[in-house]
Amino acid sequence: MAVRAAVAGASGYAGGELLRLLLAHPEVEIGALTGNSNAGQRLGALQPHLLPLAGRVLQETTPDVLAGHDVVFLALPHGQSATVAEQLGPDVLVVDMGADFRLTDAAAWERFYGSPHAGTWPYGLPELPGARAALEGSKRVAVPGCYPTAVSLALFPAYAAGLAGPEAVIVAASGTSGAGKTPKPHLLGSEVMGSMSPYGVGGGHRHTPEITQNLSAAAGETVSVSFTPTLAPMPRGILATCSAKAADGVTGESLRAVYEKAFADEPFVHLLPEGQWPATASVHGSNAVQVQVAYDADAGRIIVISAIDNLTKGTAGGAVQSMNIALGLDETTGLTTIGVAP
Amino acid sequence: MAVRAAVAGASGYAGGELLRLLLAHPEVEIGALTGNSNAGQRLGALQPHLLPLAGRVLQETTPDVLAGHDVVFLALPHGQSATVAEQLGPDVLVVDMGADFRLTDAAAWERFYGSPHAGTWPYGLPELPGARAALEGSKRVAVPGCYPTAVSLALFPAYAAGLAGPEAVIVAASGTSGAGKTPKPHLLGSEVMGSMSPYGVGGGHRHTPEITQNLSAAAGETVSVSFTPTLAPMPRGILATCSAKAADGVTGESLRAVYEKAFADEPFVHLLPEGQWPATASVHGSNAVQVQVAYDADAGRIIVISAIDNLTKGTAGGAVQSMNIALGLDETTGLTTIGVAP
Amino acid sequence: MAVRAAVAGASGYAGGELLRLLLAHPEVEIGALTGNSNAGQRLGALQPHLLPLAGRVLQETTPDVLAGHDVVFLALPHGQSATVAEQLGPDVLVVDMGADFRLTDAAAWERFYGSPHAGTWPYGLPELPGARAALEGSKRVAVPGCYPTAVSLALFPAYAAGLAGPEAVIVAASGTSGAGKTPKPHLLGSEVMGSMSPYGVGGGHRHTPEITQNLSAAAGETVSVSFTPTLAPMPRGILATCSAKAADGVTGESLRAVYEKAFADEPFVHLLPEGQWPATASVHGSNAVQVQVAYDADAGRIIVISAIDNLTKGTAGGAVQSMNIALGLDETTGLTTIGVAP
Amino acid sequence: MAVRAAVAGASGYAGGELLRLLLAHPEVEIGALTGNSNAGQRLGALQPHLLPLAGRVLQETTPDVLAGHDVVFLALPHGQSATVAEQLGPDVLVVDMGADFRLTDAAAWERFYGSPHAGTWPYGLPELPGARAALEGSKRVAVPGCYPTAVSLALFPAYAAGLAGPEAVIVAASGTSGAGKTPKPHLLGSEVMGSMSPYGVGGGHRHTPEITQNLSAAAGETVSVSFTPTLAPMPRGILATCSAKAADGVTGESLRAVYEKAFADEPFVHLLPEGQWPATASVHGSNAVQVQVAYDADAGRIIVISAIDNLTKGTAGGAVQSMNIALGLDETTGLTTIGVAP
Repeated sequence: MAVRAAVAGASGYAGGELLRLLLAHPEVEIGALTGNSNAGQRLGALQPHLLPLAGRVLQETTPDVLAGHDVVFLALPHGQSATVAEQLGPDVLVVDMGADFRLTDAAAWERFYGSPHAGTWPYGLPELPGARAALEGSKRVAVPGCYPTAVSLALFPAYAAGLAGPEAVIVAASGTSGAGKTPKPHLLGSEVMGSMSPYGVGGGHRHTPEITQNLSAAAGETVSVSFTPTLAPMPRGILATCSAKAADGVTGESLRAVYEKAFADEPFVHLLPEGQWPATASVHGSNAVQVQVAYDADAGRIIVISAIDNLTKGTAGGAVQSMNIALGLDETTGLTTIGVAP
Repeated sequence: MAVRAAVAGASGYAGGELLRLLLAHPEVEIGALTGNSNAGQRLGALQPHLLPLAGRVLQETTPDVLAGHDVVFLALPHGQSATVAEQLGPDVLVVDMGADFRLTDAAAWERFYGSPHAGTWPYGLPELPGARAALEGSKRVAVPGCYPTAVSLALFPAYAAGLAGPEAVIVAASGTSGAGKTPKPHLLGSEVMGSMSPYGVGGGHRHTPEITQNLSAAAGETVSVSFTPTLAPMPRGILATCSAKAADGVTGESLRAVYEKAFADEPFVHLLPEGQWPATASVHGSNAVQVQVAYDADAGRIIVISAIDNLTKGTAGGAVQSMNIALGLDETTGLTTIGVAP
Repeated sequence: MAVRAAVAGASGYAGGELLRLLLAHPEVEIGALTGNSNAGQRLGALQPHLLPLAGRVLQETTPDVLAGHDVVFLALPHGQSATVAEQLGPDVLVVDMGADFRLTDAAAWERFYGSPHAGTWPYGLPELPGARAALEGSKRVAVPGCYPTAVSLALFPAYAAGLAGPEAVIVAASGTSGAGKTPKPHLLGSEVMGSMSPYGVGGGHRHTPEITQNLSAAAGETVSVSFTPTLAPMPRGILATCSAKAADGVTGESLRAVYEKAFADEPFVHLLPEGQWPATASVHGSNAVQVQVAYDADAGRIIVISAIDNLTKGTAGGAVQSMNIALGLDETTGLTTIGVAP
Repeated sequence: MAVRAAVAGASGYAGGELLRLLLAHPEVEIGALTGNSNAGQRLGALQPHLLPLAGRVLQETTPDVLAGHDVVFLALPHGQSATVAEQLGPDVLVVDMGADFRLTDAAAWERFYGSPHAGTWPYGLPELPGARAALEGSKRVAVPGCYPTAVSLALFPAYAAGLAGPEAVIVAASGTSGAGKTPKPHLLGSEVMGSMSPYGVGGGHRHTPEITQNLSAAAGETVSVSFTPTLAPMPRGILATCSAKAADGVTGESLRAVYEKAFADEPFVHLLPEGQWPATASVHGSNAVQVQVAYDADAGRIIVISAIDNLTKGTAGGAVQSMNIALGLDETTGLTTIGVAP
């Protein structure tokens, strides 16, 4: 019996990537597709790469349209998910790809988003300690942000093992799809091709409290996070360069051993062989995470670098992976670790 | 019972794309992987996006290594396929992704390749008139070149229907993966990013006689081909802009009707709705072909534009599609029309 | 005594490139800068690459603001230049970088632009036969379109010498800056990177009648033009692939001889040595035009390929070159043939 | 009287950029051009963007060829400069664009380069404290590495003012031209487009000791440096994200005040207005450095971000700037702060 899935917000990049993955998911049947400003348009005009759905027409995001599905994915601007979820009732699996239910700290939410906190749902990063148990059977899932996915997977093993000092420094480069499909001057191809630039410097990016939350949970104490995101001239991908002071006694070998153990049974997170470094091209379109670690004895720091596809593992793939767990399906169903390269 | 497949030349771009597709093919089991200069190396170091095969080690391309498979794919430099195929015997399906067996005209082969003609095998472009019948049950397949795939699918319906004059003018832009993985100065990222440049101008490109062969067969008379390839700053994709004088009486409606009919039952070739134009990003990683047509009344010409992924439909996807037909599998098995965009 | 120049429309790509060139022009002093929707903003926020002008503030485009200059450059949407020029009076040199005064054929204007024809000014492509004489001392200049610049320089010598048949087929690839700075979804970096796509196919592009005008003038008879522009994943540059049937008796040698002679004394147009082909990267930021020719004996066609920077020689550099001639300065003042590569 | 300049190593990216700048330098006459493996080739085939030098032929790098010049620029592989410089004698200005004479610490040299230390020359980063005085009248100049240029200019004011703790964490993205023109598989356009990847992680990059040297000198104590370079999909540009613990009492205002003062009289280093962040596109082809600072109160860190063109200010522009000082010319002669954008 197929899982019937609706997608609210099907015209953007997150919605498009989700549909790409759902089309390849053997247990899912794609139901209603909605998009408010684009309601009435053919999907073929908005997502021309999704040929099997080219003739589908977007509907308005209303309770009636979203009713009658087993799963409803929300790819909506933040602040809208709570109302929609309430209308859907407690028996429908609601997977929120937005930010509304990611944070446990209401004050942090209000500081970074400037609106009342909607609550906290089970967090859709199954590789974190305890996350799978919380997702199993849940009817609500908060999909992590793309940067927090890349950074948390890179650093949580070091923090969980006590190898890293409490001040993490993170610089991450993201492809432009992370900035969405709404046209803005600085996102024009003419502006971004051939250019690297930072944004949200100095702690201002909304993913900062989410990273802090995850690393602090792994460490069992508050981790301070310096996070600088940069925009890179590529459509997809995140490369996160993460470092922290090494705890006393850390060696290259002990560091590597911790990561080998942490990811040994993970289907999507791959610690690369020594000497090989992550590249975003290698995970293009895949749900895989490539990780490599180094211990810099001179600087006394551990460096962990991860590469993900911001739209796949960083958004839509993470959503499908969490849906699989919530529904009791095999976690890897419909997902791949094979990238589209070169 | 799985089809056991070997790949000779697994370290290049064609071989890597083939493996990406075969990993997703439900009927295929991947057997021997060979690569002469890279024999002994882990595939993970050469094709880091193919995580499930990362631990596989390349072997030498020898008869012993390639023995015992149902299908052997050859991604070898031209001139080597005949010997390997002979060693494999007549009962093994040999799919040649190189140029050796594409041309029927020995003189054209010798002029463009400078070596003796090896012969002609059934041509792996199933959408051409008569091609499927020749492929069914065949033990030999010559996979078309990437440009001939894009151009022949764009123009054969017009020629078959008598709508186009006998002089085709084609300008095509290709991503850099079409030039292969051997490092050359003009293929460096520093050189190609931000630059468009032509090559093989004036009829010198080796794909010219192959295009001529296909269009002439469709027209039932010799078609003269002016073909200018250009290198575009992107890793994948071909955009082919093809035109010819319109025959007397052609209208926009009659042109469109011919193309609608030609592709109505094709699983991979899509005539876009009027007003929408092909983009290579939309077929990135997919086996789809996007086509659009126009009749320019002022210039008296028909213009047909097609977009493919040069590595998928243009090489490895075409190879798998032909293998499916040759083995009696559903033609679309293991292939997708869904692109990875943006 | 410095030439005092104003720029109306200083916030867009054409205006920015013009300012970049004027800053390096030894005879020009930059006066008023205007931009209606951006009036009141610092130029540093709009054109962050123009550091010496970072503190300048844009003004409204009014007659008062533009008064008191020797030259006024107009980088305005089409339809606005006539009014501004009239207000400036007949003694000020007005260089219109828009389309309003390029066409001699009022009917063609009205068909392609849908508004009344404003008139015809001396055409700022000095390399065309007779163009320099018309520009000398003129107080009005119509700067050509970027595509017509690339195409006309590629083909006019063949037409002037009677080497080319009356049906030109042109496919050109342009960088995204040619589409301007107004944010539109299809111009987002996420959409254009990794993608080639056509637009204005079938004669619909507004540069078609301008190309027709130039080639017909060179040929002394009407030349029919099939013109297909494509959008390439790079910020700047045009590569124009132009071909036509070769006249009887044309050879590779006679073709080359005509081009050598045509460009022998041109400071900006360079016929490359045999075997070397134009690349847009080589003319990045320069006013140079790279040209190469080929005679395809099999297809009976001549092929001429040109590369320009669409913003420099294709817009702002052409404007400065024409200003120099109009003012009696050395034509090359403030301009370079040196590209910024890689 | 013109300064006569020779360039040893004119075929690579550093040599090409140097020639681009020297062509625009009003006091320089370009003399001998050498390039060992390319000796005998036309420069037009190797550097097609340098049209005015297209006909020049590269010579062997011999003392005879380099004799008779006022300045000799060396763009050679490391280890070769000492011999050439000795042959030229003490009266010729030798500007070494390689690494040989940058480091003061012989042990650091030997550890990172694996060969004997050649010595230390005046360091060509005029903006550093004391650097101009050492360059004035000098006959030897060691041009800094590209990363050390971007990083040292970003952080030295904070260290000189005692605002930054002794552990700097730097993540920098570089365009591919920084990796040179020698073809290697991982530098192919197919590999780098659409991809971000790190290299030399964990302190292994040869620019690490040079950065350490510069920051330690500014701080008056040893600064530990964690430096992670990454390769970005663009031909040019470096974006350096640099941070360190803030000293007690630092505020956003005090930080900004220090940087305003440090760069107030610098012709090439620009502290951007608050709210505006550096972008590599803005300094494309220019000698400018864009800098912005932030104080992250939550993390207790100062963050300084700089953007340069790795080939201009990071290599050839820095070389020309230092030559100007050494020769007593105005420091800015032949250099620009205007970028080529978009």
